[in-house]
Amino acid sequence: MIKVGIVGGTGYTGVELLRLLAAHPQVRLTSITSRKEDGMPVADMFPSLRKRVSLAFSTPEKANLAECDVVFFATPHGVAMSQARELLAAGVKIIDLAADFRLKDTEVFEQWYGMPHSCPDLLAEAVYGLPEVNREAIRTARVIGLPGCYPTSVQLGLAPLLTQGKPLVNEAALISDSKSGASGAGRNAAVGTLLAEAGDNFHAYGVKGHRHHPEIVQGLEVLTGGRKVGLTFVPHLLPMIRGIHSTLYATILPEAREIDFQALYENHYRDAAFVDVMPAGSHPETRSVRASNYLRIAVHRPGGGDTLVILVVEDNLVKGAAGQGVQCMNLMFGLDETAGLQHIPVIP
Amino acid sequence: MIKVGIVGGTGYTGVELLRLLAAHPQVRLTSITSRKEDGMPVADMFPSLRKRVSLAFSTPEKANLAECDVVFFATPHGVAMSQARELLAAGVKIIDLAADFRLKDTEVFEQWYGMPHSCPDLLAEAVYGLPEVNREAIRTARVIGLPGCYPTSVQLGLAPLLTQGKPLVNEAALISDSKSGASGAGRNAAVGTLLAEAGDNFHAYGVKGHRHHPEIVQGLEVLTGGRKVGLTFVPHLLPMIRGIHSTLYATILPEAREIDFQALYENHYRDAAFVDVMPAGSHPETRSVRASNYLRIAVHRPGGGDTLVILVVEDNLVKGAAGQGVQCMNLMFGLDETAGLQHIPVIP
Amino acid sequence: MIKVGIVGGTGYTGVELLRLLAAHPQVRLTSITSRKEDGMPVADMFPSLRKRVSLAFSTPEKANLAECDVVFFATPHGVAMSQARELLAAGVKIIDLAADFRLKDTEVFEQWYGMPHSCPDLLAEAVYGLPEVNREAIRTARVIGLPGCYPTSVQLGLAPLLTQGKPLVNEAALISDSKSGASGAGRNAAVGTLLAEAGDNFHAYGVKGHRHHPEIVQGLEVLTGGRKVGLTFVPHLLPMIRGIHSTLYATILPEAREIDFQALYENHYRDAAFVDVMPAGSHPETRSVRASNYLRIAVHRPGGGDTLVILVVEDNLVKGAAGQGVQCMNLMFGLDETAGLQHIPVIP
Amino acid sequence: MIKVGIVGGTGYTGVELLRLLAAHPQVRLTSITSRKEDGMPVADMFPSLRKRVSLAFSTPEKANLAECDVVFFATPHGVAMSQARELLAAGVKIIDLAADFRLKDTEVFEQWYGMPHSCPDLLAEAVYGLPEVNREAIRTARVIGLPGCYPTSVQLGLAPLLTQGKPLVNEAALISDSKSGASGAGRNAAVGTLLAEAGDNFHAYGVKGHRHHPEIVQGLEVLTGGRKVGLTFVPHLLPMIRGIHSTLYATILPEAREIDFQALYENHYRDAAFVDVMPAGSHPETRSVRASNYLRIAVHRPGGGDTLVILVVEDNLVKGAAGQGVQCMNLMFGLDETAGLQHIPVIP
Repeated sequence: MIKVGIVGGTGYTGVELLRLLAAHPQVRLTSITSRKEDGMPVADMFPSLRKRVSLAFSTPEKANLAECDVVFFATPHGVAMSQARELLAAGVKIIDLAADFRLKDTEVFEQWYGMPHSCPDLLAEAVYGLPEVNREAIRTARVIGLPGCYPTSVQLGLAPLLTQGKPLVNEAALISDSKSGASGAGRNAAVGTLLAEAGDNFHAYGVKGHRHHPEIVQGLEVLTGGRKVGLTFVPHLLPMIRGIHSTLYATILPEAREIDFQALYENHYRDAAFVDVMPAGSHPETRSVRASNYLRIAVHRPGGGDTLVILVVEDNLVKGAAGQGVQCMNLMFGLDETAGLQHIPVIP
Repeated sequence: MIKVGIVGGTGYTGVELLRLLAAHPQVRLTSITSRKEDGMPVADMFPSLRKRVSLAFSTPEKANLAECDVVFFATPHGVAMSQARELLAAGVKIIDLAADFRLKDTEVFEQWYGMPHSCPDLLAEAVYGLPEVNREAIRTARVIGLPGCYPTSVQLGLAPLLTQGKPLVNEAALISDSKSGASGAGRNAAVGTLLAEAGDNFHAYGVKGHRHHPEIVQGLEVLTGGRKVGLTFVPHLLPMIRGIHSTLYATILPEAREIDFQALYENHYRDAAFVDVMPAGSHPETRSVRASNYLRIAVHRPGGGDTLVILVVEDNLVKGAAGQGVQCMNLMFGLDETAGLQHIPVIP
Repeated sequence: MIKVGIVGGTGYTGVELLRLLAAHPQVRLTSITSRKEDGMPVADMFPSLRKRVSLAFSTPEKANLAECDVVFFATPHGVAMSQARELLAAGVKIIDLAADFRLKDTEVFEQWYGMPHSCPDLLAEAVYGLPEVNREAIRTARVIGLPGCYPTSVQLGLAPLLTQGKPLVNEAALISDSKSGASGAGRNAAVGTLLAEAGDNFHAYGVKGHRHHPEIVQGLEVLTGGRKVGLTFVPHLLPMIRGIHSTLYATILPEAREIDFQALYENHYRDAAFVDVMPAGSHPETRSVRASNYLRIAVHRPGGGDTLVILVVEDNLVKGAAGQGVQCMNLMFGLDETAGLQHIPVIP
Repeated sequence: MIKVGIVGGTGYTGVELLRLLAAHPQVRLTSITSRKEDGMPVADMFPSLRKRVSLAFSTPEKANLAECDVVFFATPHGVAMSQARELLAAGVKIIDLAADFRLKDTEVFEQWYGMPHSCPDLLAEAVYGLPEVNREAIRTARVIGLPGCYPTSVQLGLAPLLTQGKPLVNEAALISDSKSGASGAGRNAAVGTLLAEAGDNFHAYGVKGHRHHPEIVQGLEVLTGGRKVGLTFVPHLLPMIRGIHSTLYATILPEAREIDFQALYENHYRDAAFVDVMPAGSHPETRSVRASNYLRIAVHRPGGGDTLVILVVEDNLVKGAAGQGVQCMNLMFGLDETAGLQHIPVIP
């Protein structure tokens, strides 16, 4: 059994980790830390866990994380990098759900997250936890920086287009019109995500700039093999709880007009356990992946023209966060990639 | 034109007052105060008011409320009573949407609101702003304590039963199973009313005790003419924005079994502009009063037995707060009771 | 492996059965019938099942249900009783999610479901599928009539009170104020449950009479051991998808005033794997059981008075339907009662 | 007073017309037809109209529409064109909320609406009811074909860009990523828009082709003065009731890079009573126009690059349908354009 600790765990990615890990056949949850809630049974905060998780929050001191095999950080940005070195020294692997190990350029990190990066060497070592792109590197990683929720949907939605050796679409003018459920904003008291504000309502935000923009561009330029990418990214807030839908637009280059994009996508993800390329003409629904680690993609070329429209759905808390973390953990410990992740989506 | 000031106005009852008063044909909005937002146009905070309300927030000092004819307090509990005396001295009438002038017993007030009452004399003078019960007293009042949102629905739902001189139902064992939309919790950052918490979810709260319980009982005992009333009150949080539905249960006394309760209710509210007794067998929907000052009631006696089931719906922000305030204002200034309140409910 | 067939399966209880049974470690799904959808892969109708369920709908003729060990009927009322005799003759057990085998009195059945009962002998044999009440009878049953969604919540919510040999509460005047998510109305095209009708809206329905009323009363009178029960049952439609919340009211008899009801409930359900009696003072949320087979109960006695308020939550599609069916199946085949039902509720 | 008749009126645009027209100071509602509901008071179907609309549905024969000044058709496609000639002959003006008088090319109409056009001459005469584009023509029109809900948002969102005499953006590659609340699908029993299907869910639809696509392109080519336009239009279904949000993408041409697009938009709509160009950097919310005739626009140019992002919100039932119809009626009868349309949006 893999001994797993969680730092943080009072937010949505934390409770989702608990849901997944508590039922994982090869995991033993050994500790969960929250300085503020020391001593409180996790199930007191989240009654959904009653009868299933008996663990209580404890302080980091009591938690003895150094005895874990792996520690997940479901914390605000900046926490993981402050504790990473010590844990690694103790032989503990780290999976960070925040942004500490995502952006390779520390200046960009500082600009968007408002703090200096405290361990650039570990950042250099860290592997970006997107298994469908980085599977082999993840297997041997000590530190994983998990992708943000939006970036997962955009990168996996564009990967088949960008990894063909030569450009198939105008890579300088990609568009991602993305929509996220309110759980993406976290379990923090805030006026903007109150039911009475965000319910029965819809709007864009961060059009001027969003933290996920540099992360996505970085990831897309890995996919192109270094060719520059231009992306317009417009996130929107959906009046619902879970789910991300990214509608991606790309202009097909003249030399790529004969390509069968449906086949291209199906081939690309033929062996991906969690990525489902739907039949031509499909419109994936966010609920079709609700509470599961699947990501579904549909490829459209309206009117047979030069604009590709790629529809991508994922559950922002699973494939966009906790589930992807467990998927990485499985790879890091030599387990079947799908272990503990075989939840069938919940509909209706 | 009646010169109207608003103290507070950054919350839901405040913005609803603005919506109603800005379109009221006999009102001139002269000032709205918020120390924190001094100088900010109201429409910057609430873009729904763009092109319609040009007023900006100002500090109480600049607002010169003493020149108003009436001031509405859409503030936390305790603010109105601290400013009332000075305004009254200047000849300004006061309508408080908070609890300062609701509970006649200052000890009960202190117990539930955690602060001493600073002007018991004004409290004694204040009129409880429920026009369908207190119409004449409201006309001449200087200070109005507006009912809470739940209390309006329960009192108007039971009034025809309790005001018949002698008991018709077991007044010692009334039940109100009440459900409110999330706007009732106000526009305050809080985890419990986040969309991701309160959406697609339902639960009771405050079963042990709720501030509206003593207020309702006080009001019901006014209706009975002093006979003691026993009430079990269970509020619940609905996964929606506006609307209250109270399901009321009362046991018919043997001597009242022959009464035609449908007729009793219809007669009682024959002249009430805003109370609609629906045909026998109806199930009023909260949306049937959305964004309007109406309150609808349906009377049921399942199986012809001894249990009366009264269904009551209102919009908690209109008849349960701002609209009722405007209704009182109309009475206080000799206007038609329905002036500025003739909004047709918004469905769907 | 138990060979399982499903008749029907295009509705919500059907797809929920598929979600549960496809992941059940001791089940092999062998067929699912829909005359209308013959040949269509189930996952084409419910893309949530893609990559997980390869079964296609087939006609009853092709399905060869007689080779199953057990057949679930997720069909409209009346279908199960028309096919039961033949399947039983072939040695197949039957679990009906509709009402064919719920009401023991065929006249009451006819009155509420508008059709004569075609096999009163099987009805007499059938066991009411509420494991927490009928566990032993279920183990040996050939035909199970699963409780309705509301009846499960009311019966389990009142069982500890009604099964103590003598009355503890006024059994002639019980009240169940119940609220259900819209999935309870099924996956049928209907105006009343459109998002634009039922969303951001709340209302009671069926106050005059509801099919579940006689079923609940029948069940409660089993619990009392035959003492007559009077129940006022008021169902309401919640603007959400899954979940039932029943708020139950009972008047404590004078001779029962000293009872520790919290302890009574805890003792009663001490060994129930799926029933969770929460700590005193709790307010269970419907989401705390979402997509799981749990049912949670909280016991309140406001002000220490004579009114008991029992709060009960369940997922109407799991403990209120498909999950309870699987729980019965487990018992009927000698499996662990929780096999394939260990889903941790999904929040947020 | 203008005598107004409504044909149809059991759907969402019908009840919205009733809400607007019943409170319009210069309108007398004289009849509303529904063959199926003959004799039923409108308020029985829509209790929101109780105490406000006493009209009953009647058959077209009884309704005597020929005595109206204007008749609104809130009917399925094909009804208005079948009755138009007779009404016009009687001197009655016609405002059609369906598609009969939108598409100028009858072949395109037939292709998308599956029926031949029965009066091409009236179609040729009909004016497209978009006041901000066609104000003068509307004043003298006898027949108005009201725009679809999506087309209103896209055309008004792009109009300032396309009407400058020469191209400012790549007009061959415009994108409209549009999202609509479920009321846009109408008040028809359908599985896809059930609360349990469309709630807490999001997806695109009609990517292959949508009836509004040719209508939008026709309208955009009017704006350009005949220059060809290429548009990718992707509609999505939002889990909410009212509101459309169109996110528009356009590539700025090199020769237009110096233009101040914020000023361009503000100037263009300087005199438009219902179009609100928000300050630079704004993110309009759909609720900011809820239940009102306003349409709000924000102009973004992320990173100062070559992609313009235009955000547009409207209430699909008001500015996208009934409100726009009343706005046209006001123009046709020489009233103030805003008469009866001064509803302040309802938030929260």
